[in-house]
Amino acid sequence: MNFNLNEAIEVLERTPTTLEFFLSGLSNGWLECNEGEGTWNATEVIEHLIEGEKTNWIPRLEFMLQEGESKPFPPFDRFSHLNDSEKKSIEEKLLEFKTIRMQNIEKLESFIEPELHLELTGSHPEFGVVRVRELIATWVTHDLTHIAQIVRVMAKRYKEDVGPWVEYLGILKK
Amino acid sequence: MNFNLNEAIEVLERTPTTLEFFLSGLSNGWLECNEGEGTWNATEVIEHLIEGEKTNWIPRLEFMLQEGESKPFPPFDRFSHLNDSEKKSIEEKLLEFKTIRMQNIEKLESFIEPELHLELTGSHPEFGVVRVRELIATWVTHDLTHIAQIVRVMAKRYKEDVGPWVEYLGILKK
Repeated sequence: MNFNLNEAIEVLERTPTTLEFFLSGLSNGWLECNEGEGTWNATEVIEHLIEGEKTNWIPRLEFMLQEGESKPFPPFDRFSHLNDSEKKSIEEKLLEFKTIRMQNIEKLESFIEPELHLELTGSHPEFGVVRVRELIATWVTHDLTHIAQIVRVMAKRYKEDVGPWVEYLGILKK
Repeated sequence: MNFNLNEAIEVLERTPTTLEFFLSGLSNGWLECNEGEGTWNATEVIEHLIEGEKTNWIPRLEFMLQEGESKPFPPFDRFSHLNDSEKKSIEEKLLEFKTIRMQNIEKLESFIEPELHLELTGSHPEFGVVRVRELIATWVTHDLTHIAQIVRVMAKRYKEDVGPWVEYLGILKK
């Protein structure tokens, strides 16, 4: 096991600023490209990350701490942000993500005492018994997944443009 | 074709700052993990990016502009940074990358007039005829590839730690 709460928080606190530096001010060509029908562009990934902050990670953690394994936590709709018709700029969305993430890290730090709480369990509606530390490790890994997704989507925009170098760029074959 | 020089530069200028925000101050656990023997950790990826700035992108571009297709450009050793025994902190390496990248973007902007130079050709030692715009598109895509690599390597560190959520995290199966 590699999990360590402080190291997990190191990533959680870096993700919004990293994405803010990477995406703010980019042309729409970069922000709006996707991997084909039914796939997400960078802006939609940020909306999904905001939705996770609001309805997934901390709410589930609170639910686990309160209910233990007695009740499964409510399922999380991974596509709900696609119904969100609010038209905000990418910079506004990135700021919203950063703000709510920072609040959630404060909650995480106030709820969780590593020696006491990391091994506590809850009941996932699909997986059954899960642990607090697994939920937090998943939160971190979920951030990393979506950063990788954003850069992959952007890379694929140049799939034809790189000419014969496509051979050396494994990311374009995914 | 999606290539556009200004949009390409948008990514090239963001990569060092993005990685600086993401990696500075991270614990060694994150900076030193890799995907197994013969694979790179985050620090080695930054060394590879620095090496590319020194010996690949701009030198090849200059070579192409000077020689056209008359001479193939020298092959680029993609592993040379692994022989580099300098012990610098990750923050020093990130600063070195940012500094040389910014100088290289200035050179790019001074060498390349989009209307005049993007379709010029050179001779790749393996691929044969390549165009200036393909080299620059590859530079951009190469950045994106290595950002994706860094986050994938870090994500895999938690492969066991996420417990049953591994099912939802495709990045852990790569």
